[in-house]
Amino acid sequence: MERVYTLGVDFGSASCRTIVVDVKDGNVISTVDVPYAHGVITEKLPNGLTLTGKRTALQVPNDYVEALQTGIHSILNETNIMKEQIIGIGIDFTASTILPVDTNFQPLCELEEFEDNPHAYVKLWKHHDAERFANEMNNLAKDKEWIKRYGGKVSAEWMLPKVIEIAEDAPEVFNKTDLFMEASDWIVAQLTGELVRNSCAAGYKGCWHKQEGYLSNEWLTEVHPSLDGIYEDKLRGDVLPVGRKAGILRIEMAELLGLKNGTSVSVGMIDAHAALPGLGVKGPGDMVVVMGTSTCHMIMDDHERKVPGISGVVEDGIIPGYFAYEAGQAAVGDLFAWYVKEQVPSYVFESATQHNMSIHEYLSMEASKLEPGQSGLLALDWINGSRTPWVNMSLSGTIVGMKLSTKPAEIYRTYLESTAFGTRVIVELFEKHQVKVNRLLTSGGIPRKNPLLIQLYADILQKEIIVDTSENASALGVAILAAATAGMEQGGYDNVTEAIDNMSSKEQHVYYPNKQNKEVYDMLFHYYKELSDYFAGGSSVMSGLATLKNRFKGGN
Amino acid sequence: MERVYTLGVDFGSASCRTIVVDVKDGNVISTVDVPYAHGVITEKLPNGLTLTGKRTALQVPNDYVEALQTGIHSILNETNIMKEQIIGIGIDFTASTILPVDTNFQPLCELEEFEDNPHAYVKLWKHHDAERFANEMNNLAKDKEWIKRYGGKVSAEWMLPKVIEIAEDAPEVFNKTDLFMEASDWIVAQLTGELVRNSCAAGYKGCWHKQEGYLSNEWLTEVHPSLDGIYEDKLRGDVLPVGRKAGILRIEMAELLGLKNGTSVSVGMIDAHAALPGLGVKGPGDMVVVMGTSTCHMIMDDHERKVPGISGVVEDGIIPGYFAYEAGQAAVGDLFAWYVKEQVPSYVFESATQHNMSIHEYLSMEASKLEPGQSGLLALDWINGSRTPWVNMSLSGTIVGMKLSTKPAEIYRTYLESTAFGTRVIVELFEKHQVKVNRLLTSGGIPRKNPLLIQLYADILQKEIIVDTSENASALGVAILAAATAGMEQGGYDNVTEAIDNMSSKEQHVYYPNKQNKEVYDMLFHYYKELSDYFAGGSSVMSGLATLKNRFKGGN
Repeated sequence: MERVYTLGVDFGSASCRTIVVDVKDGNVISTVDVPYAHGVITEKLPNGLTLTGKRTALQVPNDYVEALQTGIHSILNETNIMKEQIIGIGIDFTASTILPVDTNFQPLCELEEFEDNPHAYVKLWKHHDAERFANEMNNLAKDKEWIKRYGGKVSAEWMLPKVIEIAEDAPEVFNKTDLFMEASDWIVAQLTGELVRNSCAAGYKGCWHKQEGYLSNEWLTEVHPSLDGIYEDKLRGDVLPVGRKAGILRIEMAELLGLKNGTSVSVGMIDAHAALPGLGVKGPGDMVVVMGTSTCHMIMDDHERKVPGISGVVEDGIIPGYFAYEAGQAAVGDLFAWYVKEQVPSYVFESATQHNMSIHEYLSMEASKLEPGQSGLLALDWINGSRTPWVNMSLSGTIVGMKLSTKPAEIYRTYLESTAFGTRVIVELFEKHQVKVNRLLTSGGIPRKNPLLIQLYADILQKEIIVDTSENASALGVAILAAATAGMEQGGYDNVTEAIDNMSSKEQHVYYPNKQNKEVYDMLFHYYKELSDYFAGGSSVMSGLATLKNRFKGGN
Repeated sequence: MERVYTLGVDFGSASCRTIVVDVKDGNVISTVDVPYAHGVITEKLPNGLTLTGKRTALQVPNDYVEALQTGIHSILNETNIMKEQIIGIGIDFTASTILPVDTNFQPLCELEEFEDNPHAYVKLWKHHDAERFANEMNNLAKDKEWIKRYGGKVSAEWMLPKVIEIAEDAPEVFNKTDLFMEASDWIVAQLTGELVRNSCAAGYKGCWHKQEGYLSNEWLTEVHPSLDGIYEDKLRGDVLPVGRKAGILRIEMAELLGLKNGTSVSVGMIDAHAALPGLGVKGPGDMVVVMGTSTCHMIMDDHERKVPGISGVVEDGIIPGYFAYEAGQAAVGDLFAWYVKEQVPSYVFESATQHNMSIHEYLSMEASKLEPGQSGLLALDWINGSRTPWVNMSLSGTIVGMKLSTKPAEIYRTYLESTAFGTRVIVELFEKHQVKVNRLLTSGGIPRKNPLLIQLYADILQKEIIVDTSENASALGVAILAAATAGMEQGGYDNVTEAIDNMSSKEQHVYYPNKQNKEVYDMLFHYYKELSDYFAGGSSVMSGLATLKNRFKGGN
């Protein structure tokens, strides 16, 4: 029988990655990354208009389509795969990344009347201007049972705060909006012409629950009048579980992309969550830690438990039949990149060049010569706020213990360690609430490139850490689900478990904990928690500083 | 009548500054700086031997004599002043900078048997290896009345802890020692052949009190057996007030230096304290803030009050007839220099070059565009520990409030502000204990070079700050006292007040506080104090980190 393939398409914050995968064994035949033409828009709209929002992060929806088109053309050109051999397409996307569209799924920013209006564009997950509305929701949700599913707090990054922001700040956009859509669902709608909302984004970011449905209209109206009837109106659409078919490729898109008309398209998914099938996780016990600019932690369990401070728990959120939990750290790679860009002096760059190393390689080499505790430094990894456990974007970074002898490699190691302490907080939080964590699997560019970082995680957590070296965990995950979606008759699989067993990544490297580092790291972790409790709980310093800062444009 | 002159000689941490001053009007005719041949020794002795102490800072005594000789020769060569016109010499020195000498005032490090022994060298003020002995002294001094004069704590930088360190770690050096001397008194002894201890160093650093004398021998013996009889033996010698004659220049030194045999030499003095007569301060109300690598705060009062956390109060310590108080911040210029060296990325240096500015000028220009509170940052200025009010060298630096958008100029401004908050803590401490502070006078290189820094002090303290632009406050101060010491018959003055009135610096620039910045800086100062109380008082984080760090060589 002729070989068949699926496409996995991973829409990240800055670019779209497309891979083509052999359905028989999960072998990745080709990969292409295409950056978005307009990138992330924080200061000026494409027409040059200056933005006034303090924490704005927008994108242009057509960039997604162009990047997808360029990617698929490139893959088909460089491989000998025929479009008839591609039996399915899977999509994952950052979330909650939302946009307002009209009755034809056309983004409002593409209408001439709204091209000057930032609220008509895609609001990327890390657009944080809606925090005041998230705060209002949280005030009114304190005594609600549903909020416990989300660790006690709605995030400013989610669908509803962003919708309220548009209703408040751009009623003309709100009124013209036929649908507010997750970008994942919008891309699927572009491909299929179907309105399908995916259980993953709806559950984690849209306050949907499989048993209870959406939030009560009475409560929503109390939060903001614009939310009256919102789920029947601008947020309408069936929620389908991940791993199901959303529809088939419509003729116009098949022509645009150079694919076969009628190709199966799966329900969309959040990018981080797609890593789990990619890494071979089919059920409880394995925590997947996706490390990129930020980190997302995912673990499954047989039961729904209320874990405070997590980002969410969603039935069927990742693998049908399980409750999937999500937690997160708001800055990981972003923290290291900030440090290197804004804090590392030129003499360190010169040494790296002399050693023929990248700056991260060199700093890691120097940092690996240090023993735990030797620098006398400790940092909190909150430079972009805290997701789990504090769900507070106004928290900020801190570092303690500098002396006149303190060197850059010591600070670099301290920031690496701080993110490991942040992950240990999350693991212990789950374990305290009876969600078992046996081992950690990581994916993302950072774990592959920085062995010191992963060893620090192993030592600080005193657990085995498995690094997936496949580079494509999320894209592979949706390609696997696409093979299950396409089904046996197309050359795919009967069910998700079977697809994972055959296609998931086999490229894995294990890091073991050094037992002799346990004692010092336990002490440092104790101090990390003490500092965390102080700054996030007992003290008004961080919130006071944030209040002072936020009076100025450029706040956060 | 022929013009007459005095020499002011200021022995700093890295170099010796000599000035020649017109006795009539205080006009500084010439200035010369001579660096010490061996600088500050922290890692290897001159013969190449590696030091094992963690916080060692040594100097070579002969460097002082050579620097003095080079400086005076240079001044006499470049001016037309004849040696007969020089009527007096005044000396100030860092403190407590001590050395062990034999019966001929010869430093033990110059004996062949001790050239390998670090304890035979000068221990510079910032040599911190004796902290454990200071801690022991403080434990035993808790209920003593005298310790209140020193803010409740003896510092590791002082005479007695350094003496105990030598007795413990190098008994062979201790046993050979005839005298432990302040370097100020040793230089005076080299010049005059006389053993005279100055009231300033003896009072602030040697636990001497004008009314009560030295500490009781019973208590000293309890602290350490080596201190039994120490004040009658290795610390013997009369204590004379500053502003008095120590002796006259002996013939060998007159020849070496090219000066007149028999020239009047004043009692020595601590460098920072010498700035007060230089700046024209004759009594209570004016606080002098000497800003260099660290900052020293001095103020006089009619009464002796117990102010906790200050460095000391000494009768006749600066101007005879008044109680002189000293407080301090352990890193100011050192903090800014550390930041620029270890934390500022190359793109900022490149921008400075493009603007044809020094890095400090450029960062100050960028930082001056910010409003109070705009950065959202707050730092504690403890990178070298805290002198006043915590008297704890194990405390360390911290900065709070970083976001991914945080820029170097924001951090730079935050560190400048942190030192101003540290000074405000000290001013409020004095005022709380009835020592009145009307205005601040500053001297040192930093205030002249950084107008933003001084404006921040004015705004944060909401007081007028007077910057002395004379560049020589300490050297001028001892030159003024030298003119009073020499007396009327030599062409000098009858008393110190008259000498100050005629000779003190007239080059002063006043900074006024911006009232509109008061509210925000009051809030930030409130947070500064909250963080200080937490890290120095309530929390075990900083002390715990210091303990972990100090297990390794290179600690602190």
